[in-house]
Amino acid sequence: MRFSSKVKKCGLSPMRKFHPYAVAAKEAGKRIYHLNIGQPDIATPPQYFEAVRSFHQPVLAYAESPGMPVLIDAILRYYGKHGMQFSAGDVLITTGGSEALQIVFNCILDDGDEIIIPEPFYPNYNTMVNTCGAVIRPIHTSPEDGYFYADRARIEAAINERTRAIMCTNPGNPTGNVLSPEEMRMIADVAKEHELFLIGDEAYREFVYEEDAPLRSMGEFADAAENVIIIDTVSKRFSACGARIGCIISRNRELIGEALKYCQARLSVATLDQVASAALYDVGPEYFTAVKAEYKLRRDTVVSKLKSIPGVICESPKGAFYIMAALPVDDADKFQQWLLTDFDDNGDTVMFAPGGPFYATPGKGRNEIRIAYVLKQKDLERAMDLLALGIEAYNKR
Amino acid sequence: MRFSSKVKKCGLSPMRKFHPYAVAAKEAGKRIYHLNIGQPDIATPPQYFEAVRSFHQPVLAYAESPGMPVLIDAILRYYGKHGMQFSAGDVLITTGGSEALQIVFNCILDDGDEIIIPEPFYPNYNTMVNTCGAVIRPIHTSPEDGYFYADRARIEAAINERTRAIMCTNPGNPTGNVLSPEEMRMIADVAKEHELFLIGDEAYREFVYEEDAPLRSMGEFADAAENVIIIDTVSKRFSACGARIGCIISRNRELIGEALKYCQARLSVATLDQVASAALYDVGPEYFTAVKAEYKLRRDTVVSKLKSIPGVICESPKGAFYIMAALPVDDADKFQQWLLTDFDDNGDTVMFAPGGPFYATPGKGRNEIRIAYVLKQKDLERAMDLLALGIEAYNKR
Repeated sequence: MRFSSKVKKCGLSPMRKFHPYAVAAKEAGKRIYHLNIGQPDIATPPQYFEAVRSFHQPVLAYAESPGMPVLIDAILRYYGKHGMQFSAGDVLITTGGSEALQIVFNCILDDGDEIIIPEPFYPNYNTMVNTCGAVIRPIHTSPEDGYFYADRARIEAAINERTRAIMCTNPGNPTGNVLSPEEMRMIADVAKEHELFLIGDEAYREFVYEEDAPLRSMGEFADAAENVIIIDTVSKRFSACGARIGCIISRNRELIGEALKYCQARLSVATLDQVASAALYDVGPEYFTAVKAEYKLRRDTVVSKLKSIPGVICESPKGAFYIMAALPVDDADKFQQWLLTDFDDNGDTVMFAPGGPFYATPGKGRNEIRIAYVLKQKDLERAMDLLALGIEAYNKR
Repeated sequence: MRFSSKVKKCGLSPMRKFHPYAVAAKEAGKRIYHLNIGQPDIATPPQYFEAVRSFHQPVLAYAESPGMPVLIDAILRYYGKHGMQFSAGDVLITTGGSEALQIVFNCILDDGDEIIIPEPFYPNYNTMVNTCGAVIRPIHTSPEDGYFYADRARIEAAINERTRAIMCTNPGNPTGNVLSPEEMRMIADVAKEHELFLIGDEAYREFVYEEDAPLRSMGEFADAAENVIIIDTVSKRFSACGARIGCIISRNRELIGEALKYCQARLSVATLDQVASAALYDVGPEYFTAVKAEYKLRRDTVVSKLKSIPGVICESPKGAFYIMAALPVDDADKFQQWLLTDFDDNGDTVMFAPGGPFYATPGKGRNEIRIAYVLKQKDLERAMDLLALGIEAYNKR
């Protein structure tokens, strides 16, 4: 029996590839500090569980294919509060931001098409783009440059006749980069001029650590209404990753019409999770203030610890809860495996995500890692100390 | 901006295409009896909601990409009870049976590939197969034949060098056909001989109305372990369509390995719905006995009402909760629209799904309809009387 050439091009998740070694290390009695997965430890707002408990319909029925009005309304109010006016017909609810991406890519990417994404990028984009028979054309960046990509010449150099879209993960995963309003405007202009879709994956929109920074979105550019597609999700915003509730937002009605075909084919998104996610939008600004303060503290801890390790290259990320750094090691993959199989400090070791799979360009990112700072302050400090001790011991082998 | 040629080949759901006319009819004060959507009115077992209410983890976290062990274990026990031994590595939990189908098709269908499906079939298969760049090769059937397709010569005639799989929806949607054990065995043999995947979409497995019929599955054929892929879901079994919990089951580990790439790329299936769906498997056999008795009564009502309408061709379906019938009208699409815009009996009218979109062969099914018998007995009787009155009035125009 044969398999699709497209699935053969895909790989398993780099965040999960060391899972067997981690299991063996735990069985050998080691404690592992996990910096490899972006699963926040912040409590999900109680509004979610209260809404779930007060659901009293006798039949758990299919929801509407485009999404439940109660959730769409909550999302429209949220965007309205931040100065963006959308209407119900601009929104399709999806099973997480992941399904939003899959549906959008399937709508706009054909065999041989290209989508421009700055590298390093979230590796699951590869599977989603490959499935459509398309490829990611990366914008090159470097750790020495702070992974800067918002340069018109560099973006335009990547555009050719097969380009269909530019995608910005903003704030960035894995880099934590945050585009300035001027950079966002420039990218929107490039998309308009070249008649490209501009996909804003804005899962980390709330997580920007500049004092009093207003929340930004590609949705602000009403003049690029036909180009802009926003990918959104409750996963990180409300620490509700397990709800699997996301959405596609676009004023391009043709795009929404095509995407609706997929939404109808998979019938609907989980009913209870939609009802409960609508309730999440009732949390007040004090929730975001507290969560942001906590992540900012963690970021500062990670950055100060990293900067104290000789040979590490990194800049303080402005947003999200990730940091990408170049380490003074030959190969981050080998180093990670060694940390699990050959290293411990008082029975403790640490896991991160090796950088290679975050790049489309072969060979890039080999000595880089992504750290997700999703642990409590004390655990984070210990994890970073383990990283420093590990680097020293690894290079002394 | 351009859209993918694949999405352009897809259409909106035929079950939902008359929605705007239905809205207008309701606004004009008409009451509509819905026989068009397979949304059961049976109460979801209380175990689901109890499990949801007793979930007390503070963080609603991502579940494991292949699915939560608690749900996989429940599914393994269910299959074990019915004589089929699978192991945890044979199962991947998905967002409904819909995602299970999408993932499987993406794994096995490449551009230009073919999958054999008897027509009429569930129209959403079209979107899922088109997305992969593949096409459905139908096995032809007819209403006069009771939509019979399990004939070796007819199946083998559809096989060519691009064929990758045979798919059986059993019990059938829209026909309600149920394969005999001998027919299932023959199809498994054909799949083995021609080295094809055999996909059993068994969403309606419990709904077989023969007295004391044991529950059947393509999973019984352990000798076709490499070929058989089962698509399963809690949607109809437990009247939990809004849970969006399904699964892929196969002993073909290479298939499971490829499918896991997709599962990891979309991270996980909703956590609460998995926990609650596991609890559904605690319902006792009395639940199924009562539900089956209720559907059998409804089936008998629909069949007897249909048979009393002159010119209708149909057979009593052996399973699922659908019936496909040929009506004495020129065009079921036009007839449906007329029922919404020009007909009522004391303010009442009726909706079904016109048959054309259930066929891959152009022009077929034009005078056929699918009825979902998911209404309470009294409403069902009224709906069928409205259909009879409608046909008479429509043909007298």
